[in-house]
Amino acid sequence: VDSSSENAGDSAHTARDDDPVFALHRGGKVEIRSTVGELDAALLSAAYTPGVAEVCLAIAADPALADIYTWRHHTVAVVTDGSAVLGLGDIGPAAALPVMEGKALLFKELGGVDAVPICLDVREVDDIVATVQRLAPSFGGINLEDISAPRCFEIERRLRDTLSIPVFHDDQHGTAVVVLAALKNAARLTGRELRDLRVVMSGAGAAGVAVCAILQNAGVGDVAVADRRGIIYSGRTDLNDVKRALAERTNSAGLNGTLEEAMAGADVFVGVSGGHVSEAAVASMAKDAIVFALANPDPEIHPDIANKYAAVVATGRSDFPNQINNVLAFPGIFKGALTAGSPSITEQMKVVAAQAIADVVGDDLAADYVIPDALDPRVAPAVAVAVEHCVRRED
Amino acid sequence: VDSSSENAGDSAHTARDDDPVFALHRGGKVEIRSTVGELDAALLSAAYTPGVAEVCLAIAADPALADIYTWRHHTVAVVTDGSAVLGLGDIGPAAALPVMEGKALLFKELGGVDAVPICLDVREVDDIVATVQRLAPSFGGINLEDISAPRCFEIERRLRDTLSIPVFHDDQHGTAVVVLAALKNAARLTGRELRDLRVVMSGAGAAGVAVCAILQNAGVGDVAVADRRGIIYSGRTDLNDVKRALAERTNSAGLNGTLEEAMAGADVFVGVSGGHVSEAAVASMAKDAIVFALANPDPEIHPDIANKYAAVVATGRSDFPNQINNVLAFPGIFKGALTAGSPSITEQMKVVAAQAIADVVGDDLAADYVIPDALDPRVAPAVAVAVEHCVRRED
Repeated sequence: VDSSSENAGDSAHTARDDDPVFALHRGGKVEIRSTVGELDAALLSAAYTPGVAEVCLAIAADPALADIYTWRHHTVAVVTDGSAVLGLGDIGPAAALPVMEGKALLFKELGGVDAVPICLDVREVDDIVATVQRLAPSFGGINLEDISAPRCFEIERRLRDTLSIPVFHDDQHGTAVVVLAALKNAARLTGRELRDLRVVMSGAGAAGVAVCAILQNAGVGDVAVADRRGIIYSGRTDLNDVKRALAERTNSAGLNGTLEEAMAGADVFVGVSGGHVSEAAVASMAKDAIVFALANPDPEIHPDIANKYAAVVATGRSDFPNQINNVLAFPGIFKGALTAGSPSITEQMKVVAAQAIADVVGDDLAADYVIPDALDPRVAPAVAVAVEHCVRRED
Repeated sequence: VDSSSENAGDSAHTARDDDPVFALHRGGKVEIRSTVGELDAALLSAAYTPGVAEVCLAIAADPALADIYTWRHHTVAVVTDGSAVLGLGDIGPAAALPVMEGKALLFKELGGVDAVPICLDVREVDDIVATVQRLAPSFGGINLEDISAPRCFEIERRLRDTLSIPVFHDDQHGTAVVVLAALKNAARLTGRELRDLRVVMSGAGAAGVAVCAILQNAGVGDVAVADRRGIIYSGRTDLNDVKRALAERTNSAGLNGTLEEAMAGADVFVGVSGGHVSEAAVASMAKDAIVFALANPDPEIHPDIANKYAAVVATGRSDFPNQINNVLAFPGIFKGALTAGSPSITEQMKVVAAQAIADVVGDDLAADYVIPDALDPRVAPAVAVAVEHCVRRED
């Protein structure tokens, strides 16, 4: 969840070979490698013609064998159109490629999942859906990435409805899973049940909608969501379809003012907006408030300020405690779903993933440790096992 | 060039774990690997957020930088619809995946090019063209593979016309380049110039059309092409557009009978059809005849029979001398084109690639050695350098 779009023009964004970040990216960050040893005549005739023909015919006769005799079973496409990249906004498919390569790197290093960056030069929902449907035979799963709202909702829904492999929009569900994990631990630390919490959210885009949904699925007492115009409620006349649906199933108290007005007495603030909230608003929250200010690089409120009033503060940044980072979720979720051969990623799989992440914290739970470190090596395997077991229970 | 479709039903094509070919394919043959070292907090923040944002913005400002700061510059998509896989015919995209993985393996091992298997579940020319156009921002080149004729011609032409990266249908041009390389050496061995040769070809599909074109571009005296109904000539009324174009620019002698009738007195036979030619037809060819019987696994005439009459015999098989294998061409051609930043693969680049392959044989030229071994490590680097120099000369 990023807020840096307003900063995009602050500096000259040119390539600098003496910059270690640019030096790191030179030539890209991933490669394709053979997994079948030294290339000699025997390998050539087994891995390619004529030997490969027998494998092709076996798959033609029984398509499920593609999951055994190709890389598909452990490979996902990381698909974007470059329309909502990080907090940078619509920078297009080529400029999005470094992010997708980074994602591929994380998929492999953390989850053992092979991921292929696919940056699409197309914007219409129908075209993106059709393109991903056509690509699907090559992949065991589809990770949608950095596609702008509200298109991302329809794209994901239609792909989920038509493909028999997991489809997961990470900006929505990865964020949602990690927020739920952190909130479970924050509630445990402060001695509250999820059902007793009143949550106010800032942001009704991809992440906001998904966070709201997972919190409700997990039994959070009430969630009210604000966009830039204030709290979303049933009477508002400026709502698109997605926000109208939000209005119908959130905000049971019927709030209708500003975000900051809604924060008065609230137990939890979750910011996924890139906006700002005042110190006074945080001060007005309930006792033992929980503040997740997730905009990057500029949290909705600085954690040092929030900590004056809140019992738990989390951000999206690595230089403060309690970093909410999607990397805790997607490698393990896909690893578990692919291992179990799941045709989709269900709400229940996300909830068990959140619990698995939360459980890694265990007895070390503290105000500055409600969520594991982004690179904690225990997380992805724990998530994968939890998701795999969830799939097998549902079978 | 394969002829095995008639044999597809001969055995039970089921997976057999005790078969070493199936064991080799278990889990697939390629993987994605990080190229940037151990994943730690510093790498996470440089390769992913927040560091990657600077690289994205630099590319957004100057799209050419994607060739420096992503893997695109050394990565191609190996794209098929599974409609003409090896000699197996239309087995669909999932069953084609083992071949595309094999191709990816060869691209990397021989050419140092990263190749991603992309098997498309779509058949209309318009849809395949649109899909590849949408994928293009992620890739430095497009290797089309195993797409049936005549659709492959229009697909390649339209992609070449609209994309600014190399597009290469290997079944056409890879075969053509290696045939030309072998023919150059066979002519040299038998003391003839290309312009003095009369060539008869069997097969007017993807490979046949491209072989015919490259031979004509290289200055071969006359080429006549036969399909299943006999020699293609201007008066034939059953020709599609592609064959009508062939009729107009081939067969200057105006032959109009059967393939075997046309072979009488011919200097060269090139079979890319999967059909058969009789011993008598080969016996009727000119002195020092050259026979390239390239159908796989069953050559148009067995090399032991052809050798009774011909000065040079080549096949598509690894268990006879002079194997015509595309693997001699595509890794080096793409490596050279990508290194030089060429926006396309021109006819001239194919001709220099053929010469580079032929030159590897050098002074070792003999009737059983007119073409290098498929895995000769000298070939791909020589082809890459020749192609790169060709591009730089044309600039």
